[in-house]
Amino acid sequence: MLSLLLALALSPEPPQAAAVQSSGRVAPDKRAPSEIVAAAPASDWVTIRPDDLIVMELAPDTTGRPRRVVIQLAPPPFAQGWVANIGTLAKARWWDGTSVNRVQDNYVAQWGDASEKKPLPPGLNKVAESEYEMPFHPGLFPNLWSNGAIVPVPARSSNAAAARAPKLADPYAEHYTFVGGMPFAMTMKGTAPDRVWPVHCYGSVGVGRNLSPDTGTGAELYAVIGHAPRHLDRNIAVVGRVVEGIEHLSSLPRGTEALGFYRTAAERIPIRSIRLASDLSQAERPRFQYLSTESASFAAYADARANRRDAFFIRPAGGADVCNLPVPVRRAP
Amino acid sequence: MLSLLLALALSPEPPQAAAVQSSGRVAPDKRAPSEIVAAAPASDWVTIRPDDLIVMELAPDTTGRPRRVVIQLAPPPFAQGWVANIGTLAKARWWDGTSVNRVQDNYVAQWGDASEKKPLPPGLNKVAESEYEMPFHPGLFPNLWSNGAIVPVPARSSNAAAARAPKLADPYAEHYTFVGGMPFAMTMKGTAPDRVWPVHCYGSVGVGRNLSPDTGTGAELYAVIGHAPRHLDRNIAVVGRVVEGIEHLSSLPRGTEALGFYRTAAERIPIRSIRLASDLSQAERPRFQYLSTESASFAAYADARANRRDAFFIRPAGGADVCNLPVPVRRAP
Repeated sequence: MLSLLLALALSPEPPQAAAVQSSGRVAPDKRAPSEIVAAAPASDWVTIRPDDLIVMELAPDTTGRPRRVVIQLAPPPFAQGWVANIGTLAKARWWDGTSVNRVQDNYVAQWGDASEKKPLPPGLNKVAESEYEMPFHPGLFPNLWSNGAIVPVPARSSNAAAARAPKLADPYAEHYTFVGGMPFAMTMKGTAPDRVWPVHCYGSVGVGRNLSPDTGTGAELYAVIGHAPRHLDRNIAVVGRVVEGIEHLSSLPRGTEALGFYRTAAERIPIRSIRLASDLSQAERPRFQYLSTESASFAAYADARANRRDAFFIRPAGGADVCNLPVPVRRAP
Repeated sequence: MLSLLLALALSPEPPQAAAVQSSGRVAPDKRAPSEIVAAAPASDWVTIRPDDLIVMELAPDTTGRPRRVVIQLAPPPFAQGWVANIGTLAKARWWDGTSVNRVQDNYVAQWGDASEKKPLPPGLNKVAESEYEMPFHPGLFPNLWSNGAIVPVPARSSNAAAARAPKLADPYAEHYTFVGGMPFAMTMKGTAPDRVWPVHCYGSVGVGRNLSPDTGTGAELYAVIGHAPRHLDRNIAVVGRVVEGIEHLSSLPRGTEALGFYRTAAERIPIRSIRLASDLSQAERPRFQYLSTESASFAAYADARANRRDAFFIRPAGGADVCNLPVPVRRAP
């Protein structure tokens, strides 16, 4: 049936490696991004540490099917005050019995304690606003998307993979990089990165807060379920991204009150638990990997995302915005 | 409760007009975009013609509530071959009894005839691929976002509103404009627009097709329900945007087959009807307006979207991507 339907996306093609011509130049890769990812060798995948993953179990859906949302937490040095708080809250089982309280179309799904009365566990950090972005220092990015050279994207390196890297400059920032499989924007001073901050994309997870100077603890979290709300960057803490189960949030009914809050308690979606993956038993613990942004596979994937040459497409775009380059994630085989 | 919740978005503020200082300069507008839109005078709103609107009635939801999706069709000269076909199909009541067959997370919801056997009505245009983008000619854009001067965004005009316009250049295009309340990308030759094409944003509606050179008739349609898939621009026809009811598509369960197709007929969401608004009775016909992109209100709105100065925000972004500047739409008062 698929071959007959007016399918919007590409038709499956047999995988083919990029052809190297006699000149030594690499012929344009006509594979779809998904084919490139599927062909990436095991060594191109990076295991996400279990203590960098939180696992949220929503109440089962109306047919009784479980709804698990897995979230990767931001790598050091980003957002670590809030990330530590999330660990504290998870270990205290604080979210058990809380709920998804707000679902606003083309924006966010947000969860936490609807009563606002549940006492917080001890030991939560109060995080300063200065933590919304980090100053760069050498060694900050041991693994940058340029096969090790500390060169941001767009690259000034002669490195072939970096040279193929799509130019990501957009109205929000001139320069981007990826750390731990997540996207970050940067300013530069000369040829060196200066300030670095996480980017809100679809599936990004952030920390709800009151008005400045409050920065939130992490008890109230949200996930982006629409077009990337980049105006939130540096105004609120991004602490991670959903790696599995975003559909359990993005397909929820939208709330009918202002900002998409649910009008009644009955509408809220109960949260059974949020646990660090490292606190689950071996049998229950999900294992995930992301595609290394230093790998040739990622470079080929990014190039293909920016220049679709697979069968369905007529006109490669010649570029991609950073949120249209999600770093691939998979369950560890 | 709202004032206590860790609300992600701005706190409501009393509306205030932009202050004009004694120097004649306008002080930065600290209003939220929504406040600016709410304060726009009646003369800033443009009525959408009823024959530029299609009204889709999905089967009611499980609680019996109706689910209506209203779509504005693209203005001439864009996509008119497909737009005419959509009118032909609607007048033939062709979609009655068809269904939403595909919902792919962070991508599209797609609908049409799942059997692929339903005969099409006579008189459908076969549209050429060259219609994916239009050549510019003087008079093409009688109403451009610059108070009448044919100047694209970013503007080179000394017009104050245009001068405040956020610079929208991104990895996909250098120049943008708005026509009929919808966003278009452009190339330039010198200071004149050269080629113009519609942009895929959240809520955009497009025409499903087979492989090139097929361009689709319009019988199979999709709406974007995730981050703007800009790589589709100029590869497939954008014919409009959802102006009301997108949540009835974006909150649907995701399909479990490849590309988000539903596995079983029972999962598909029945479409009761799709009608041109002009073919509905006066009582049933919804009336919509969009905020004129030539108005001072839109200029202020766009500036505020790109530079959030309202209470919740600490750091205005200093820019916005075109899909983060959706042209406001409202029910006609």
